[in-house]
This record gives sequence, C-alpha cells and structure tokens, in this order.
Amino acid sequence: MEKILITASKTYEVLTGEGLLPRAGRLIRPVLSEKAQKLCIVTDDTVDRLYSGVLSDSLTDAGYETVKFVFPPGEASKSLDTLSELLEFLADHQLTRSDALIALGGGIVGDLTGFAAASYLRGIDFVQVPTTLLAAVDSSVGGKTGINLKAGKNLAGAFWQPSLVLFDIDTMKTLSYDLLLDGAAEAIKAGAIADRELFSYIDRVDRLDAPETIRYLSSRAIEIKRQVVEADERDTGVRQLLNFGHTVGHAIEKCSDFSISHGHAVAMGMVICARAALALGWSQEDCLSPLLASLEKFSFPLACPYSAEELCNAALKDKKRMGDTITLVIPAALGDCRLKKIPISQLNEFIKAGLS
Amino acid sequence: MEKILITASKTYEVLTGEGLLPRAGRLIRPVLSEKAQKLCIVTDDTVDRLYSGVLSDSLTDAGYETVKFVFPPGEASKSLDTLSELLEFLADHQLTRSDALIALGGGIVGDLTGFAAASYLRGIDFVQVPTTLLAAVDSSVGGKTGINLKAGKNLAGAFWQPSLVLFDIDTMKTLSYDLLLDGAAEAIKAGAIADRELFSYIDRVDRLDAPETIRYLSSRAIEIKRQVVEADERDTGVRQLLNFGHTVGHAIEKCSDFSISHGHAVAMGMVICARAALALGWSQEDCLSPLLASLEKFSFPLACPYSAEELCNAALKDKKRMGDTITLVIPAALGDCRLKKIPISQLNEFIKAGLS
Repeated sequence: MEKILITASKTYEVLTGEGLLPRAGRLIRPVLSEKAQKLCIVTDDTVDRLYSGVLSDSLTDAGYETVKFVFPPGEASKSLDTLSELLEFLADHQLTRSDALIALGGGIVGDLTGFAAASYLRGIDFVQVPTTLLAAVDSSVGGKTGINLKAGKNLAGAFWQPSLVLFDIDTMKTLSYDLLLDGAAEAIKAGAIADRELFSYIDRVDRLDAPETIRYLSSRAIEIKRQVVEADERDTGVRQLLNFGHTVGHAIEKCSDFSISHGHAVAMGMVICARAALALGWSQEDCLSPLLASLEKFSFPLACPYSAEELCNAALKDKKRMGDTITLVIPAALGDCRLKKIPISQLNEFIKAGLS
Repeated sequence: MEKILITASKTYEVLTGEGLLPRAGRLIRPVLSEKAQKLCIVTDDTVDRLYSGVLSDSLTDAGYETVKFVFPPGEASKSLDTLSELLEFLADHQLTRSDALIALGGGIVGDLTGFAAASYLRGIDFVQVPTTLLAAVDSSVGGKTGINLKAGKNLAGAFWQPSLVLFDIDTMKTLSYDLLLDGAAEAIKAGAIADRELFSYIDRVDRLDAPETIRYLSSRAIEIKRQVVEADERDTGVRQLLNFGHTVGHAIEKCSDFSISHGHAVAMGMVICARAALALGWSQEDCLSPLLASLEKFSFPLACPYSAEELCNAALKDKKRMGDTITLVIPAALGDCRLKKIPISQLNEFIKAGLS
C-alpha cells in the first residue's frame, strides 16, 4: 500500500494498493470522529452491484451502522435534484455532525457526494473510494466538489476536502479499456504539466491495463496533483495548470453532446494545444511528438471530428463567465506547462493552428 | 457610522448607521474584487418594494450592473427549490467568480443568499444588508448560511462569511414593533451571555423603537457575537453559547407551528431556562429577575402556552442528530453563560422546573 499525504485546508492521505476495499472499515476508522456511528455509502447502480457489498461488510465489521443511497449512473444524476434527494435522505436517516459519507464510484459520485458532505449540517466528513482510474487520479483528490446546473457543468459546488482517499487497484479489473483510457489521459496530462519522466516510462511499458502500469501512472498523477493543490487549493492561479487540454477538451465533449468522454476529449485537446503551441512558437521544444507517442501507444483515438469554428463557439459559450480573455495552458517544454492569457478573439486562430 | 471588525476565516466590517443604503455602492466597492462588474440583489417581495430601488440606484451610480432575484417572503422560501432557482438565475445571468450577491432583507434572505454565494462557482463574494433588527444583530454576522430541509430547519448550508455587513438603521422605521422585538430578544440574549451592563442600559432606556436604543443594542449584540464567532467560527464549542434560550425556543416555535416567531420564542425560552437553572441550583445568582425585567420593559409576551412534555418532545425530535446528550446554555451569572451537557432523559424535568 502506498500513501501520499495531501496538506490542504485539511490534511489527509491517499492510499493506493490492492485489496483495500475489504479493509476499508479498519482504514477509515482512524480518520473519522470517535463519535461517528453511521456511515452513508453513496454510489450509482453500476458500482452498487459490484462493490457495495464488500464495502458495507467491511464497515459493519469495523462497528459502523451503514445506510446506502444509490442513484442512476451518468452525468444527468449530477444535478440539484439528486443532491436534494441525498440531503433529505441524510436528514431522514438522522446522520449527525460526527457521521460521514463514503463516495463509492467515479467522478460523478465523488463530486456529488463531496458537495452533499460540504452542505449537510454545514459540513461533515466524507471519504473518497474511487472505482475509476479517472476519479482516482483526478477528481477524488483536491476537494473540488460540485454539480451541474442547466446552464453548464460544475457551476455549483464547494471546496471540501475528503478525510481519506482509498484507491483499491483491484477495482480496475471491472473497468472497460475505454474507461481506463479516460484516467490515462489525465495521468499523461499530469506528466505534461510537471513530469517528463512519465513519458519515458510509458515508452518502456507494455500495456496500460497491467496493475503495475496503473499503480505507476496513478501514483505520479496524484503526486503532481498534490503539489498543485497544495500551492493553490482554491484554484485562483497555478491550479489552472491542471486544465491543460481542457478548454478544447470541454468544447469537444460539448460538440459531441458528451458522446466523446472526458478523458478522450482531453487527449484530443492536449494534442491540439501542443500542436498549436509548437506552430505559434510558444513552446521551447517539440512537446507534440512525445505526447502523441504516449497517447498512440495506448491506442487513444485522436482524430478530432470538429472544425475550429465549432470548437471555438463551444469553448466561448462556456467561458463567457470569465470576461474578455481566456487563460490557456501551454506546454513551454515537456513537463513544464505555463498559463497564457489570450484575448478570446484569438482563440479561433489558436485552435485552427492546433487542428492543421 | 460605527464599524466593528470581524476577524474570522475572512476579515470584514459591520457598518452601522443612518443613511447607509443610498451610499451602499461606494461602501461596497472597496470590499469586492476590482474585476466585479455584475451584482445580484437577492430579496423578498416585501423588502423589494421598500428598498430595492434605492440600493440598486446606489450600485448603478457606483458603476455596477445589477440584476435582481426576488422570492416570496416567509420560511417556506428558505428551501432547496428557491436555492436551485437562484443558482440557475446566477448562471443564466452569467455572473463570474469576481461578481457578488447582495442579500437585502431579513434572516431568510441572508441565509439563502449566503448559501448560494458559497455554492455558486464554488464560492463568490456576498454582502449582507440586513433590514430587520434580528438579521442585523444575529444572522448577518458570523457566516452561518443555510436552508431548511423537509426534516428540519437549517439542515443544509455552509460556513461562508460575507465581505461586508451594512446595517442602515433607517430601515428600522418600516419594521413592526413585533419584528423589532424579535431582534431585541437576541440582543438581550447577547447581554445574558456576556454583558450584564446591557441590562442596566435597558433599565434606563425609554423606548425600544428609538434609534439610539437600536444603535446601542445592535452594537453590543454584534460585538458579543464577534467575540464568540472569532473564538469558534465553526460552532464546535463556545459558539454554542449563542444558543441560550434556543433549545426551548425552537421547541416553542415548532409547537406553535411557527405562529410564535423566533425572537418571541427565544425570549420565552430564556425565561424558562433561567428559571430552571435557578430552581436547580445551577445559577450562582438570580439571573431570572433582571432578564424578566428587561423583557417586560419592552412588553414581550412571555406566557408559554405549552406543557413541559410538549416542549420536550418537540426539542428531542430536533436533537436526535446529536446523540444521547443535549447541551444546554445555563446562566451561571448575569452576563456569564456556560455550556452544560445533560442526558436527554433529564430534559423534561429541566423544562418542567422552568415552567413552574
């Protein structure tokens, strides 16, 4: 079992290893209040069938009473309606300020559960148990929680750190290769931001779905996220580096009506961004080639089916809340990204350079 | 204009004086981001008719664009539904992270607006402009925000401090005497907790609805709230002192189906609590007499129409989330309250002693 300590407004550990779910109760007990009695497992139908039983048994063995809130999988559940149902559920089951929530699932489960934990009784503890690689390397660490509004994704939420992150690598066995890729994209992103060594590692590796590859990639990605979150927990500066590939990636997701998943879209977004930065002379070296090599090694589909105009319109619709400029993340060198503010009028030209 | 500086997780001023609303724009500008452009005034229909115009004009004069969200007055609006509508409204009007909300009204407006500010884009600034004495002396200071769930009041929310509190005493002219009493109860409560001088002042004063009385009472109450909030912002210890009279008070509100208002119920609650503490030998001096004298001077109706059993049942229904004990606030001496934990099985006996 590997431990990474996150020192944000709350200090907590990310535990990564095999066989952690059956030991969850014992691992969770030290981080919760001694007065904690009741834990609410929050999950979706898919993950519920796979892992609720083992988690719940382990919590019961550790002396906790458990209740369970299950909702339909998918982005549509990350809503004020589900949040509302969950909060009423917690009140109906009379969870106290000392009790806690356990988010068992991917990013949607974690984001929603975290926001409920932040809001219920003005804030109670919660534990992240990510069961997708994407959630493990990205959303479960750093305390960004939230839900979607009708006007857009993640428009309401809270900064609320978990008390513990438990990443049981065994759960990756039930993940499709496509879902593994979604997580791998964020790990490669972390490498592009701050760890060029990661690209040499991928160069030497045989397959993404080997436990040792997953362990290495998640460990590096979490470590880089730790550094960035500790430097800027509330996302007013350097934390924006984590958005490498995301401005264009979000636009791709939207243009596809979310049929292209987040990680796949971010992979395309990173390539477009690296190619544009190279063409415009904003990179000091060729970051595109190693990025392409890593993504292609894992067989990412990288052909972007949208025009610069379509992507630009989608991106700007999302960014009107930001004013007249847009902050891009540019790879100055491999493993060294920088923030660059450009007028929104230049975005179309930038994306065009990235597509050609 | 009087200033009280609150040093919590955010440092901000409470400004009290006459003629502040017409100067709101100029007073607010220094505390918001330089990038703030759009302000959303949140208020209810009653206050909207009285004060939105002057506030909005003042903000416009100071160079801000304003939008306005108005909801029906009353506790039923302090709901997830209204919160949801408000959040969607903010997104539709594309408020940015640099923009801010202005809560114009009583405690319901302030609590709801504060929670929306805490949640929108994971937290933006907000300003409290209390237009009731109760909101001025109590809910607008200290950062407790929230909404009601079906299971009970204030069960969801956030600790989120305002950037400024603007209390224009002129707005008290449109307040009914009953609503003034609601605020006076909390001011007297503050005196009971930490300022016995306040009782001598009330003894000397002519009338509650004179501006100088309001200025004195609000100033003392806010100062005491400042001390308590600074010592325990997240309400895990000494801040519970602010609940003097509230356990029984809440029970009275509930038994009356909220036809007895918060302040009036707290006044009755304080009397019951002081009488019980005296009878049980938990007070070192007679706190009941000066408390009664102050409340009667302002003509508080103090006869409690409910039995100990009714109040006890109502109180415990609310407190199941707390476990097997209940923390009471007991006046050890006038101006010196203490927390006292008792088994919930003793609550009935305590209330009975307070009623007889």
